[in-house]
Amino acid sequence: MGTADSASVTVRGKDLCNDLLGRVDFASMVYLEIQGRLPAESEAQALNAVLVTLTEHGMTPSALASRLTYTGAPESLQGAVTAGLLGVGDVFLGAMEECARLLMTLDEQSAGSEDERIRRLVQERHAAGQRMPGLGHPVHKPVDPRAVRLYEIAAELGIPDTHRRRMERLRDVAEVVYERSPLPINVDGACGALLNDIGIPWQTQRGIAIVARAAGLVGHVWDEIQRPVGATAWRVADEAIPYQAPDGSRD
Amino acid sequence: MGTADSASVTVRGKDLCNDLLGRVDFASMVYLEIQGRLPAESEAQALNAVLVTLTEHGMTPSALASRLTYTGAPESLQGAVTAGLLGVGDVFLGAMEECARLLMTLDEQSAGSEDERIRRLVQERHAAGQRMPGLGHPVHKPVDPRAVRLYEIAAELGIPDTHRRRMERLRDVAEVVYERSPLPINVDGACGALLNDIGIPWQTQRGIAIVARAAGLVGHVWDEIQRPVGATAWRVADEAIPYQAPDGSRD
Amino acid sequence: MGTADSASVTVRGKDLCNDLLGRVDFASMVYLEIQGRLPAESEAQALNAVLVTLTEHGMTPSALASRLTYTGAPESLQGAVTAGLLGVGDVFLGAMEECARLLMTLDEQSAGSEDERIRRLVQERHAAGQRMPGLGHPVHKPVDPRAVRLYEIAAELGIPDTHRRRMERLRDVAEVVYERSPLPINVDGACGALLNDIGIPWQTQRGIAIVARAAGLVGHVWDEIQRPVGATAWRVADEAIPYQAPDGSRD
Amino acid sequence: MGTADSASVTVRGKDLCNDLLGRVDFASMVYLEIQGRLPAESEAQALNAVLVTLTEHGMTPSALASRLTYTGAPESLQGAVTAGLLGVGDVFLGAMEECARLLMTLDEQSAGSEDERIRRLVQERHAAGQRMPGLGHPVHKPVDPRAVRLYEIAAELGIPDTHRRRMERLRDVAEVVYERSPLPINVDGACGALLNDIGIPWQTQRGIAIVARAAGLVGHVWDEIQRPVGATAWRVADEAIPYQAPDGSRD
Repeated sequence: MGTADSASVTVRGKDLCNDLLGRVDFASMVYLEIQGRLPAESEAQALNAVLVTLTEHGMTPSALASRLTYTGAPESLQGAVTAGLLGVGDVFLGAMEECARLLMTLDEQSAGSEDERIRRLVQERHAAGQRMPGLGHPVHKPVDPRAVRLYEIAAELGIPDTHRRRMERLRDVAEVVYERSPLPINVDGACGALLNDIGIPWQTQRGIAIVARAAGLVGHVWDEIQRPVGATAWRVADEAIPYQAPDGSRD
Repeated sequence: MGTADSASVTVRGKDLCNDLLGRVDFASMVYLEIQGRLPAESEAQALNAVLVTLTEHGMTPSALASRLTYTGAPESLQGAVTAGLLGVGDVFLGAMEECARLLMTLDEQSAGSEDERIRRLVQERHAAGQRMPGLGHPVHKPVDPRAVRLYEIAAELGIPDTHRRRMERLRDVAEVVYERSPLPINVDGACGALLNDIGIPWQTQRGIAIVARAAGLVGHVWDEIQRPVGATAWRVADEAIPYQAPDGSRD
Repeated sequence: MGTADSASVTVRGKDLCNDLLGRVDFASMVYLEIQGRLPAESEAQALNAVLVTLTEHGMTPSALASRLTYTGAPESLQGAVTAGLLGVGDVFLGAMEECARLLMTLDEQSAGSEDERIRRLVQERHAAGQRMPGLGHPVHKPVDPRAVRLYEIAAELGIPDTHRRRMERLRDVAEVVYERSPLPINVDGACGALLNDIGIPWQTQRGIAIVARAAGLVGHVWDEIQRPVGATAWRVADEAIPYQAPDGSRD
Repeated sequence: MGTADSASVTVRGKDLCNDLLGRVDFASMVYLEIQGRLPAESEAQALNAVLVTLTEHGMTPSALASRLTYTGAPESLQGAVTAGLLGVGDVFLGAMEECARLLMTLDEQSAGSEDERIRRLVQERHAAGQRMPGLGHPVHKPVDPRAVRLYEIAAELGIPDTHRRRMERLRDVAEVVYERSPLPINVDGACGALLNDIGIPWQTQRGIAIVARAAGLVGHVWDEIQRPVGATAWRVADEAIPYQAPDGSRD
């Protein structure tokens, strides 16, 4: 992925000092690492917006895991951050990845118009009792303001909208088939569609979330160092969860 | 550490099938991995007792980190367990390691009788405002029943008691110097001293705790799969910890 | 999972000091954590044999990951060990888990005799182009000596052999259907079947491997501290893997 | 760290949709997470340059640990990335952190001019047999081109140069005291000094490296998925490292 001699460093086919440093931002470097090419300016801006969106979600299970780990092992900041990153998995990211994957599969299905393929996809999931990922939110109603903003930004940047439009069609069809309206596109749906539109493979979108969340967790651990709350989290959780003996009796 | 041919497997100089399987227990294998030799029967029994002591400590920060990680990433049991293990660090294990290390340093100090060296050690820590590790407990009073039992077991097994006696002398001197009595030997002090007495280097005692705690955390994750409480821990912690803006204002 | 008052500690419904310490070995504690009950003596012995089998497999990818991590972060033994444990996943453990799961599914299939169900299972996998897990070994021929020894030990202990016999039938049928003979039961097949026979749920067998491998990795890190080879692993790997630019050109 | 209602999300006192998305880049978000305020444009550019510098260093121990972990556990991209991040520790980052810390301590020492304090610092380390961190490089001679470029960028951006100048004085004095010339400022020295100059606390600079390296490791794991080399790394490392029995005999 990189090589060096006495006077230069080459990273992914680019001269680090002359082509990258001072010329491209970190989001472009993230893009280069995954795609093997530098992004267009508009693609870099869009990736920045997604990274900013995913950085900080408050006192999540990941943030708590990092803080609790720090209370036991303050010698290793990297250990505390990674404890939180290990929770960036199927549940936390399921909806974004699944959206991105479903939107990609629409390319592979040959039969029928795109509209017919979208209808079939929604009907099959509904018949199978599966939720449509990327739609609906328990708090943000009637729309998820982050999804609205990401769509605005992408339009302003002139990013091709193949997957964002598909996501809108999925929403329209799902509102009818699932008989729930409104069923707004949420942050997961918007991020997955936009990352697809700038060419990030759905298999690596989890990696985008890991980079963003790493920054958020560094922030949480630094906050924990200055304002410890891990012990409070421990105490209230311990009090709220009763001891249960193997025979089912509780304390 | 191991090698194999078509008919046999060699691990640490032992024939796995003929020398180890069915002949030694897992604690002996742990000992072999660290010491490069099999333990005597009494040493294996003592190590079993320490491992059993360290396995399960209830709803600790480590257990919570494992359960919270599982809620986000149920696809990886190893990720959930390791998130908890990352908290097995300086704070959690500080007292046991520090006890073991201090007890070892008494060998290296040449001047004076052992009793004089112990007095000097306690007085220096007291003068420096440092606590004596391995002594005292907020809940277990006047004695820590686990420490008492580990001492009993070690005596029954006939384990040499060099470090356990030193630990008792440290306690006697500390009760006078720190003017706190009783100041019982706690589980950390008993484990560190006993592991020293069976020849486990203090630098690897953290590894003994990792093995034991791995078993405890597997139990917690399996319990989490059957009786999920991670979401409860998240909710109560999130409620108990106020949002604080960078200017210090709270929500 | 545990609770305490001033004079006692209760773990999984047992009094730690009176029921467990000095009375049960660590393998029994592992069993208690997963099953919520103590094992019979024969079950504990069988679990010890499986744990000993899984502890050390030489310079595996996991061992290398632990050693390489230690070279960068020697301040955290727990970080080095967990880096290795994170590789205890679907590939490394796929065969053992899949064996255990397949053997369990034979209980659930109602139609036909057990023999008919086994034939159907093997034929379906063969038709689907899938390997049979737990059979065959590239080095150990004509038999895997660890599997042979685990079967012997289990028989000597009088452990019920429902799943071990099923595994033997699977082998007999697979040798015919896959037209490969001999196709010996390997260590994965023997461990999965034996853990089934002592009642360890297949979903937690990965946890058994984690506990065993944790001990092996502690041994590797301690060896790395005394006899560093991580730098050698780095150098030879770096030399063996050519730099490849995004356009496919190599250095 | 964040809070939300139906129509808005607040992160670190900022309205995510109106103040951050589309207005600030990801490096600014990293800065906000650590500092609690948004950076000036020049500070954001400087942080981008440091993040780009730290992203990719080729087939490092961290990259190998991630790739080896992926070969065993391909179900968890987050597990593979975190295995590599666990090696981002004292050795890998020691020089950058130590530089940043030493440069900060010059503020705290009251006696003498800054020049006298720098001389004293270098002489004390030399007398103690300690290396000066952030100086010299085995490959990059007579200068480290990355350090030169980072100094250029910082000057163009008009970043205050208190710590960069101190670093240059440290170099000048060290060349005399250690009798080695040239002893160029390397990438660690330049990054530590520049991060100090934009106000990143030295205790969190490890976090900056973690974020950057997370991106590099995502790139390595995605490359491993498409062009597997983990098995090669395993094979050559296993061949290069002889089995050694506990008695010291080798295979």
